[in-house]
Amino acid sequence: MSQLSIGIGLMGLGVIAGQVAKVLADKADDLAARVGCPVVLRRIKVLPQDLKRPRAKQMPAALFTTDEDEFFNEPGIDIVVEAIGGERPAYEYLRRALTSGKHAVTSNKEVIAKHGTELLALAQENGVGLLYEASVGGGIPLIAPFKHDLVANEITGIFAIINGTTNYILTRMAREGMDFAAALKEAQKLGYAEANPENDVEGYDARYKLAILASLAFQMKVMPEDIHCEGITRLAGRDFRYARDLNFAIKLLAIAKRSDGAIEARVHPVFIPADSFLAKVDGVYNCVQVEGDLVGRVLFMGEGAGPSATSSAVVADIVAAARKIVLGIGSLSAWQPVSGKRIKPIDEIETQYYVRLAAADRPGVLAKIATVFGNNKISIASALQPESDDITKTAEIVIMTHPAREKAMQKALKELAGLEVVNEISNCIRVEDIEGSES
Amino acid sequence: MSQLSIGIGLMGLGVIAGQVAKVLADKADDLAARVGCPVVLRRIKVLPQDLKRPRAKQMPAALFTTDEDEFFNEPGIDIVVEAIGGERPAYEYLRRALTSGKHAVTSNKEVIAKHGTELLALAQENGVGLLYEASVGGGIPLIAPFKHDLVANEITGIFAIINGTTNYILTRMAREGMDFAAALKEAQKLGYAEANPENDVEGYDARYKLAILASLAFQMKVMPEDIHCEGITRLAGRDFRYARDLNFAIKLLAIAKRSDGAIEARVHPVFIPADSFLAKVDGVYNCVQVEGDLVGRVLFMGEGAGPSATSSAVVADIVAAARKIVLGIGSLSAWQPVSGKRIKPIDEIETQYYVRLAAADRPGVLAKIATVFGNNKISIASALQPESDDITKTAEIVIMTHPAREKAMQKALKELAGLEVVNEISNCIRVEDIEGSES
Repeated sequence: MSQLSIGIGLMGLGVIAGQVAKVLADKADDLAARVGCPVVLRRIKVLPQDLKRPRAKQMPAALFTTDEDEFFNEPGIDIVVEAIGGERPAYEYLRRALTSGKHAVTSNKEVIAKHGTELLALAQENGVGLLYEASVGGGIPLIAPFKHDLVANEITGIFAIINGTTNYILTRMAREGMDFAAALKEAQKLGYAEANPENDVEGYDARYKLAILASLAFQMKVMPEDIHCEGITRLAGRDFRYARDLNFAIKLLAIAKRSDGAIEARVHPVFIPADSFLAKVDGVYNCVQVEGDLVGRVLFMGEGAGPSATSSAVVADIVAAARKIVLGIGSLSAWQPVSGKRIKPIDEIETQYYVRLAAADRPGVLAKIATVFGNNKISIASALQPESDDITKTAEIVIMTHPAREKAMQKALKELAGLEVVNEISNCIRVEDIEGSES
Repeated sequence: MSQLSIGIGLMGLGVIAGQVAKVLADKADDLAARVGCPVVLRRIKVLPQDLKRPRAKQMPAALFTTDEDEFFNEPGIDIVVEAIGGERPAYEYLRRALTSGKHAVTSNKEVIAKHGTELLALAQENGVGLLYEASVGGGIPLIAPFKHDLVANEITGIFAIINGTTNYILTRMAREGMDFAAALKEAQKLGYAEANPENDVEGYDARYKLAILASLAFQMKVMPEDIHCEGITRLAGRDFRYARDLNFAIKLLAIAKRSDGAIEARVHPVFIPADSFLAKVDGVYNCVQVEGDLVGRVLFMGEGAGPSATSSAVVADIVAAARKIVLGIGSLSAWQPVSGKRIKPIDEIETQYYVRLAAADRPGVLAKIATVFGNNKISIASALQPESDDITKTAEIVIMTHPAREKAMQKALKELAGLEVVNEISNCIRVEDIEGSES
């Protein structure tokens, strides 16, 4: 099959779409050499308000259409690049692209996390590809390793820093003793956090990405709602101080791992050993540690977001789809869930815990607290009482436990909160014993 | 095209070949599901002495042949896996496999570094694939990113710790103040260094790997002999002490980067900032930092060697080749050198330098030394005279320069060595100003 050129239809004109259009234009010669024929941006589907953007005014007006039907009926489009974001109408657009026999490329984590299985099956039915490398970790290759490079492995664990906003905030809190609100404000000022930061700081963004990675790694359907999720808003400056004293760092990790024949999948702040590699990943960097039975530990790191890094992955996917068209190959292989593994409810997981609480500063208080842990079969590894306040007669107590069941811990926390001598459970953070940075 | 099974012919029965055979057997069901039909080990080409190995005795005797013709004439072999190592006869075997229309998979860095361009063209001519992911960095995906994930980027630099043996030795020297000989002995005892360690400690192994990565990254033919190469044998414990004082780490880096329209490609010990990510990669780990115009910095890290990690990459390549056969696809695209960029001779590079020398301990000596640097237009950034020996009346002087030409530095070193007041140029190490671990 000989092809004169590959036509691209772009949906959206936000920063990512704008950057993709720019790369397709700036690197046209390079991309043509890679693909074997020119790759041409044929049409851009926009909203009326997009036409007022400065980047719209730098492109030929004839490229644009606000009409969905006109866009999909354009005969010269071989590959649809969806860069709208959000669940709808992106989901419907991707369905329509695939159903009409066009390859589709997307950076949309929400749509892939929620509808990936269905859309991949639809692509397969229609003999085309659905490529989504940009949906996780910007330009860091994270989807490809699971689809290709690591296929000989049984993946045993994924430990991922996959949200740059929260990692930036945690880095500032750890280094400068800032509290959450101040660090968030800094991140917003620098453009690392949005005006409404909920999606990042509550862990929802990381949860979408983990759903995608875990589905691939364990060859099963892991939905966002299957993943236990806690954000970073409850972390205080003093938690970082205690973490440092105990030789830990605090990170928001997305974790998926095999556990007693089932899968654990969760996003929450964790204590990790200060000498582990992930503990050293600071600022807006993303880093995904993957563990496999053959490969051991491999780590993938880089800037996880930003239009430039994301366009690196989107354009690589465009090149991959275009090569398939040039070579006359359809969808190489669908992603099919083969494992029917159960996802453990959070109640069933077992881990160590850091508990910080405020209690009355008088003799016998620690004994009462320890009794509650003991009654719930939770062993205490260490207890610190680093500070007391002479005026209010309260003391801060920090407890590290041995591995315990989440269910027992939640019950213990409830009972502790009910103790007359306990003023407040200030925080409870799980401890993840990932290994250090060397073997 | 429908295929009942994919036949594998394995060459060699060393630790890697043995592990590959084991994975093909242990994971037969998984691999069949990935490929779409069974992947069957049909024949193993061995040397007579291999038959005495314990692992040979655990396999059916009929699998083995010591006869090259018998191996290549075996009709059921679709993919040849070369795991002999060394340049010859591996090179001839790969030629023969490709010429006879079989796909080939290899972990052989020497053959790919020296003959990759020719073998890839031969594969293309014969409509088959030559896959070599395992030749660099064990199971860490390092070839695939350049072939697929990063194709939209102009690669600007590669900074790589790609030899675990030397990184282990340097880690021990840095942490425990060991000297090279003692750290080497430790590495040998633990099986991280060979009895004859030359290939690792002189940088030759890293040079092969850099030739492969640089050829891919810059789409040009970079031969091992184009790469300036220095090993780690001249490093002393005191160099690590000074490095730490100056806030640097010492690593053996393989560096390839764009520089004034040409390419620099070199392997040698370098001072890198202590807060850079590569400085934190310790022990036998490998880590490759890639810089691209779109993606920024991405890092790939993991155990770079060992039979298990290497088998992860070899078997992934087998699966990739097998899928192509099942789908009736030939070689997707050859690697073709498109850039005719010049590789800078080492004389032309410009960098900062750390120079340690022993000189007479008397007034005016530093002035004489500084004059030599000045005459060669090399600015001194700092000069330390941390220690002097009262008995021999010698002082150790440590100088950090501003960026200077290598040619000027070599001339200055020669002149310094000729000064009556200089007893010895103890070391001269280049400084690579890679950026820190966050943005």
